[in-house]
Amino acid sequence: MTESASSRTPLSPTPRSTPTRYKDRVRTDRADLDTVLDAGLVCHLGVLLGGTPVVLPTIYGRDGDTLYIHGSTGAGSLRAAIAHDISVAVTLVDGVVYARSAMHFSMNYRSAVVLGRAVEVTGYDECLHGLRVIVEHAAPGAWSRVRPPNKKELAATKVLALDLTEASVKVRAGGPIDDAADIEAGGVWAGVLPLRQVWEAPIGSEDLAPDIAVPGDVLRRCESSLVPIR
Amino acid sequence: MTESASSRTPLSPTPRSTPTRYKDRVRTDRADLDTVLDAGLVCHLGVLLGGTPVVLPTIYGRDGDTLYIHGSTGAGSLRAAIAHDISVAVTLVDGVVYARSAMHFSMNYRSAVVLGRAVEVTGYDECLHGLRVIVEHAAPGAWSRVRPPNKKELAATKVLALDLTEASVKVRAGGPIDDAADIEAGGVWAGVLPLRQVWEAPIGSEDLAPDIAVPGDVLRRCESSLVPIR
Repeated sequence: MTESASSRTPLSPTPRSTPTRYKDRVRTDRADLDTVLDAGLVCHLGVLLGGTPVVLPTIYGRDGDTLYIHGSTGAGSLRAAIAHDISVAVTLVDGVVYARSAMHFSMNYRSAVVLGRAVEVTGYDECLHGLRVIVEHAAPGAWSRVRPPNKKELAATKVLALDLTEASVKVRAGGPIDDAADIEAGGVWAGVLPLRQVWEAPIGSEDLAPDIAVPGDVLRRCESSLVPIR
Repeated sequence: MTESASSRTPLSPTPRSTPTRYKDRVRTDRADLDTVLDAGLVCHLGVLLGGTPVVLPTIYGRDGDTLYIHGSTGAGSLRAAIAHDISVAVTLVDGVVYARSAMHFSMNYRSAVVLGRAVEVTGYDECLHGLRVIVEHAAPGAWSRVRPPNKKELAATKVLALDLTEASVKVRAGGPIDDAADIEAGGVWAGVLPLRQVWEAPIGSEDLAPDIAVPGDVLRRCESSLVPIR
């Protein structure tokens, strides 16, 4: 949500966060990481459960150089997540790339993979801040007009913070890269079918009183388009 | 892509594939797994790399009871993926749930997590079949009108197959579940902002001859809507 202090500085990936395939798709500017993280809605968390790398979708939020996730204090996945290094991936699919040969079909996408050791956020104010960042990521502008978490809710919630210093960002955009022979042979269409996420009209809850209007933050979001933040 | 023999039978999850949180969201019908997998475009693969559960986005395809992924024979992630159990998650975000209190904000989503040991597909015909399933998932109807993989391309490609018998499916739909006191207090809008993926008009490649028309499979997809397969 807020701009990170290092948003104009390069990412400093370690060997394990340095992609080895399709190096031309790798972005090394820290601002690209922020852009991808801010454009996503859910992340995929990788944790070790019984020795297996289990992938779980969850919501998240970013504040500066910190990514926050949360869950129930009873969730085994969050207990596991602070016992070892984890990864968090955010992927936005922007289109399907149609090529002239099967092996050159691809996706246009923006993706970020963050690696590191998450820490449990402790302290009332710090937990509340993390939850605010997560809720504001899912629903920008909503936090200040809804009931904040009470002490019972906070006590039942675990917030984890993951530093963003070790991450990789990959972006593929543009048309297919076909073999020269296939282009010369002709006859086959090639191009991109762009994909876009759009908000539809808000649906009020069934238990909503008829005099309550849709708030401005919801209307503004609905009028915007989500994904094409390029 | 094709209907699985067991699509009318229940999923048989093991303890590790049985969600412990939000049990009311759990689907146990095998057909729900197929629906989620067929509606997604990319999956998130969880592999162990240097002891860390690393999450990587990749394309995939389903044929009956088998999920296929592929990559370069040089990709360390695919070598790692067959050395231990992996997981593959497919998540579709259908909307943001706006509640009357911060802790009841949520997402509407459909998600599947498959667990198991992937095997490398061997044999020319079997590899070709796996690649066809993946390309047809990314671009339905395209395989038969483009150049198929040649022997050199096949030799550079590794195809993995993952059985779908161990999986969990979760679906959240509908409005917020607010506390009675917050509903009675009134004054706060609550509802759902639905999210939808739409195809935009196809963009022909820059190196495309002007006489080549957009093929029917691309046009039909463009005219359809992708995600709302409910």
